[in-house]
Amino acid sequence: METSVNKNRSIAEQEKFQNSLVTGLQEFLGEQRAQLQEISEDAAELIDAVAVLADGGKRLRALLAYWGWRGAGGAELAGQAVQAGIAIELFQAAALIHDDIIDRSDTRRGKPSVHRGFELRHRQRGWSLDAERYGEAAAILAGDLCLSFSEEVFAGIGSEGASGTRARKIFNRMRAEVMAGQYLDVLEEVAGPGRPPEHAVDRALKILRYKSAKYSTEHPLCLGGALAGGDSELISRYSAFGLPLGEAFQIRDDVLGVFGDPETTGKPAGDDLREGKRTVLIGLTLNNCSPSERDYLEKHLGSPDLTGAEIDGLRGIIEQSGALGSVEAMIAELSDAAFSALELLPVEPVVGEAMQNLADRAVRRTA
Amino acid sequence: METSVNKNRSIAEQEKFQNSLVTGLQEFLGEQRAQLQEISEDAAELIDAVAVLADGGKRLRALLAYWGWRGAGGAELAGQAVQAGIAIELFQAAALIHDDIIDRSDTRRGKPSVHRGFELRHRQRGWSLDAERYGEAAAILAGDLCLSFSEEVFAGIGSEGASGTRARKIFNRMRAEVMAGQYLDVLEEVAGPGRPPEHAVDRALKILRYKSAKYSTEHPLCLGGALAGGDSELISRYSAFGLPLGEAFQIRDDVLGVFGDPETTGKPAGDDLREGKRTVLIGLTLNNCSPSERDYLEKHLGSPDLTGAEIDGLRGIIEQSGALGSVEAMIAELSDAAFSALELLPVEPVVGEAMQNLADRAVRRTA
Repeated sequence: METSVNKNRSIAEQEKFQNSLVTGLQEFLGEQRAQLQEISEDAAELIDAVAVLADGGKRLRALLAYWGWRGAGGAELAGQAVQAGIAIELFQAAALIHDDIIDRSDTRRGKPSVHRGFELRHRQRGWSLDAERYGEAAAILAGDLCLSFSEEVFAGIGSEGASGTRARKIFNRMRAEVMAGQYLDVLEEVAGPGRPPEHAVDRALKILRYKSAKYSTEHPLCLGGALAGGDSELISRYSAFGLPLGEAFQIRDDVLGVFGDPETTGKPAGDDLREGKRTVLIGLTLNNCSPSERDYLEKHLGSPDLTGAEIDGLRGIIEQSGALGSVEAMIAELSDAAFSALELLPVEPVVGEAMQNLADRAVRRTA
Repeated sequence: METSVNKNRSIAEQEKFQNSLVTGLQEFLGEQRAQLQEISEDAAELIDAVAVLADGGKRLRALLAYWGWRGAGGAELAGQAVQAGIAIELFQAAALIHDDIIDRSDTRRGKPSVHRGFELRHRQRGWSLDAERYGEAAAILAGDLCLSFSEEVFAGIGSEGASGTRARKIFNRMRAEVMAGQYLDVLEEVAGPGRPPEHAVDRALKILRYKSAKYSTEHPLCLGGALAGGDSELISRYSAFGLPLGEAFQIRDDVLGVFGDPETTGKPAGDDLREGKRTVLIGLTLNNCSPSERDYLEKHLGSPDLTGAEIDGLRGIIEQSGALGSVEAMIAELSDAAFSALELLPVEPVVGEAMQNLADRAVRRTA
């Protein structure tokens, strides 16, 4: 009974926060649009691309930052927490825009990815030269703008986000680690095949930790906590909850990237196979499949025009090898670790409820 | 006699500042490298790419920021001015890394551009998949990292760089305007040929103002002045000097992009012609040449494999049309405006000497 009261309170509070977040984001982008419009109507198109992307998504990171803030004693629906959430969402948008160029992803959140959107407009308007190159160039710049905006908003939080604070250090570290993780991912695609296969799983784990896990859950949570003045003891406890949660979240993402339903993920079937992502799932498969299966895998992984039959073939090998079962077991183990750490967090019940709910969504998601 | 004493003093002070700038930049990148190395030796390669690029260049922007700082009463060789210079240099490096991807430039400062450097390493090590795509992906991430670093350093200046200050506003505006200007440049290449030719010169002027002029001279100068607490009167006077100077600087750059000597520019001959840049020089040419010359220009501009004879042909048309003469006259007029505004600046003689020297270098350069 008590639990369900807390649950309802946390849902109501989260909804209010999310509304402030969306309103704040739209207002910020509206102001930026007005400024760029003064230069030229054309320049405002960059903001439109950012706004469309920033309009969607699960807001997981911003919500974790908010509850991290609240768990450290931050005031309900405080402006600083909203600002931090907007900064994180803009950073996420910037990372996605550039990631989609790097991965050659055609879609994002069920819509054309930003570079494909610009490319499409080029074709529709019958412009000169290469539509694809224009799309990439425009998206590089849209991502840069979005990255700058993220920082502008973070710096706007005030003294808590200024130099030397714990929150600023986490924010800086978050950005550098995501970029390093993304680079390791890009590198693994090209250098991985020539490196010791027995270390492939370790390399994949490192990539998922830095590229995604820390940044999707641990860093936002700790950032929110640090902004509200949480001490190092609390921040470590947040990490003990957030890191395994993020790892479970990302391994689930890798499973969805191979086995997910395009209807719910908003991505084509087997997208990660076409991209040749060297995930933990793939690493485990390579270690456990037969030599002929390994040849089949190495031959087709990363081939941009995989057929439906080839995707089925690859999926079969991954399942048969036991890799799918192993990663499901890893997800369960990491989730257990996260939920155990969550129980020990010294936070108000309403905060604990909200974190529990977000953690459930993160590891049990289908999209 | 008095002048030459001031000149010597300003040269000596500038040299000291430049040494602090280079040392500070190296220290910062060294710390960042150590942090990323903890993740993986591979990740540190991203920093190496940034460090090689950041090691070169004329440091015009950082020097202007410094003298802007000094002119507003900032202390000699103050740490905040050095930090601001490092932030600006890192922003410039980030912009160049992404600009070279967008423009497909093979070289920068006489060395391979960052994306080509990564591509080269891919080939040397015999990695899998596409070397060119790997190079671009790695350079997108290196640029993102560099952009984040720029902001990290700027936020590290302290309260003068925090939210709400005049300096922070200039820093934010500088970034957004450069990205908008770059986008207008990219757009002009593809959409320009279909737009009214009689406005081509105006469009090119707008691009050069936002992509380059403001950011190369006006913004750094004003940023330094604002950091030192300069009032709006001083900042406007800085603009009156910095903006025409930046415009003259960029028009000179456009001339060098077509007529410059590869030995001194570090760029291949006629690089801007190959890239199809729609500069003021090209806009004036299109307005003044014969229809057959216009056809020749439209046919060859932006063709990636222009021959030496075709470059000579294009240069001939540009000269014959009178466009080269006209832009030289524009450079002279803008320089006059800048130097007149400089004379009116209420700054110490040693500062005035230094600004005069930088302005000379900016508009009379050959590289």
